Amino acid sequence: MKRCIIIPDSYKGTLSSIQICNVMEAVVKKHFPSCETIKVPIADGGEGTVDCFLHATDAKKITLRTTGPYGETIETYYARLGDTAVIEMASAAGLMLAMNSEYGLNPRKTTTYGVGQMMKHAIEQGCKEIILGLGGSCTNDCGVGAARALGTCFFDTMGKEFIPTADSLTKIADIDNSITQELLQGIKVTAMCDIDNPLYGPEGAAYVFAPQKGADASTVELLDYNLQSLADVIAEVLGKRVSKMPGAGAAGGFGAGVVSFFQGKLRSGIDTLLDLIKFDELLIGTDMVFTGEGRIDSQSLRGKAVIGIAMRAKVENVPVIAVVGSIAEDIEAAYDMGVTSIFSINRAPMSFEEAKDLSEQNLADTMDSLMRFYKIGLGS
Amino acid sequence: MKRCIIIPDSYKGTLSSIQICNVMEAVVKKHFPSCETIKVPIADGGEGTVDCFLHATDAKKITLRTTGPYGETIETYYARLGDTAVIEMASAAGLMLAMNSEYGLNPRKTTTYGVGQMMKHAIEQGCKEIILGLGGSCTNDCGVGAARALGTCFFDTMGKEFIPTADSLTKIADIDNSITQELLQGIKVTAMCDIDNPLYGPEGAAYVFAPQKGADASTVELLDYNLQSLADVIAEVLGKRVSKMPGAGAAGGFGAGVVSFFQGKLRSGIDTLLDLIKFDELLIGTDMVFTGEGRIDSQSLRGKAVIGIAMRAKVENVPVIAVVGSIAEDIEAAYDMGVTSIFSINRAPMSFEEAKDLSEQNLADTMDSLMRFYKIGLGS
Repeated sequence: MKRCIIIPDSYKGTLSSIQICNVMEAVVKKHFPSCETIKVPIADGGEGTVDCFLHATDAKKITLRTTGPYGETIETYYARLGDTAVIEMASAAGLMLAMNSEYGLNPRKTTTYGVGQMMKHAIEQGCKEIILGLGGSCTNDCGVGAARALGTCFFDTMGKEFIPTADSLTKIADIDNSITQELLQGIKVTAMCDIDNPLYGPEGAAYVFAPQKGADASTVELLDYNLQSLADVIAEVLGKRVSKMPGAGAAGGFGAGVVSFFQGKLRSGIDTLLDLIKFDELLIGTDMVFTGEGRIDSQSLRGKAVIGIAMRAKVENVPVIAVVGSIAEDIEAAYDMGVTSIFSINRAPMSFEEAKDLSEQNLADTMDSLMRFYKIGLGS
Repeated sequence: MKRCIIIPDSYKGTLSSIQICNVMEAVVKKHFPSCETIKVPIADGGEGTVDCFLHATDAKKITLRTTGPYGETIETYYARLGDTAVIEMASAAGLMLAMNSEYGLNPRKTTTYGVGQMMKHAIEQGCKEIILGLGGSCTNDCGVGAARALGTCFFDTMGKEFIPTADSLTKIADIDNSITQELLQGIKVTAMCDIDNPLYGPEGAAYVFAPQKGADASTVELLDYNLQSLADVIAEVLGKRVSKMPGAGAAGGFGAGVVSFFQGKLRSGIDTLLDLIKFDELLIGTDMVFTGEGRIDSQSLRGKAVIGIAMRAKVENVPVIAVVGSIAEDIEAAYDMGVTSIFSINRAPMSFEEAKDLSEQNLADTMDSLMRFYKIGLGS
């Protein structure tokens, strides 16, 4: 083996993708000391996306001051590679920021304004592409805060401009998006999004995600109603029908905001990442791809990192080995989609509670078994 | 892959070695339809040894009538291949026979007489080698019953001949082993034995194994004392010092009896089997050996099937893949001894209770993953 790509997702609750990369690399190097290993800890838009991206590439960390979820000043950062900025929503509008503030979790009041400030900063620094990781937000403002930071103006029924938050979305009677549109001329905005939720309704942003952001039942109802109200104005004024768009409900409606205010696109996180790191080019001359995730099953393959990777590797005829925490029974579809073989790290029957502390050793041992086995084929 | 040997031990409590053979073969054939598969379900002396041997080779099943543990007439069988007879002690002196009889379990009274009858039958039919599987006995008679069947005479202090059982071993004052010795002239007797227990004492046959044969505390004491008494007579009359010999305590002292009365040898079950099937010859031209067992660990490698197989395969440079129910943490020693790689069938974290019903499917899936992975090496 001369070159391999190590590109695992995290094992949720046990090992981070960076940890998995390091374990896999150590075992590969043990058996193939001269093998070139390309490590890409997967970040598909959730928390840690920027850190993983900084780890995987020679992107530059850009530190700046923005406002946090409650308008307070915070120091945050994004990653820049060439003229692409990778911005994580959670870094200016994240759950942890809200939880650690004096106001705590309150999705009626939190704003995505700081996210817009980061976007604006990147644009002013010459970035031509903005990639947004939507995971871990504490907001439900449909991205109006971010839009305002870029220049969008929101007016009430009296024609008076104001800065809306989630609980005042119903007051928006008119929108002027021209400044933002001009600013984004020639700028490609993509949000990494692997959920299908619509903007509002029982499967919408408020009902599904607001409770974990601190909303009680009546707040959920209010937030849901407000998103619906804004969707009507967006449709009327901006001509975008986003309410039923899959992913519109991501990150407190930020998915809808990306499309409505930024003319952006929602795209699978893994595909966005793979493009970003030029995965297709990396595959050329690569002998094997090692990937993994907490659990693999054929029922929910959409947006799954392993499958996204496999589908591309299949084109280049590079084998993909998935080493995972847990394998569901029916995985034939994964093979059809380009996964060569799937192994679990479980070495003995035991519960997850018992097994989780052994994850790192079990992963190393399983990789070791695989490398030992692989050498037979090479030798024959 | 043109030829493989499939030679697994059972997964205790879940899959028999014959079941494992069939699953492994099916998966190999799925990926390598023209691969020749040699299936050898491992029987290392325990119950099922003869059946496995009949399954693995073209040995002939020899049916005969003997006495059972309480002298009753039973129909039983052994296997014959060429001039070798494979006899399972449990088939004439087994726990199940005693449990199903009107007397139940009573190691004071049960006899190995029927085992001697099977041996005699095989000799009379021209067999030159007798291999004894010692597992699952209901006796504690040190093999005196079997010896009597072959011609050994036991005398009390009055010089009167009698047929001893476990509770009358103390009455033996003299032994005439000449008829048995003559009958066994030119006959090689080997007992498959993977335990180290001495004949008597805290680690001896009575204390360690008699309770599961129905002995209460006072019976255990009696049986232990009686074995000690016989050992003294054997040392004095036959000149064999067997009391501390490792394995003497196997099968209610039958290990000691094999050496004392039959000039036999105790040998590791797996090594005996591997010789019997001419494993070393089978290895020539074989691409891979698949084996397995319930649990593999480096602490207790003696007598383990996987290690016995690996040590021989290493000489011929044939890779050995162990697919097991459970892998202990420290298995480096197994690699040193010739195991190429070890995989467990566990696909997800779950308890043994949950996992055991999935064993067959998990084994098939794991073998499938391995065959898919193996093909990469072949293709590269």
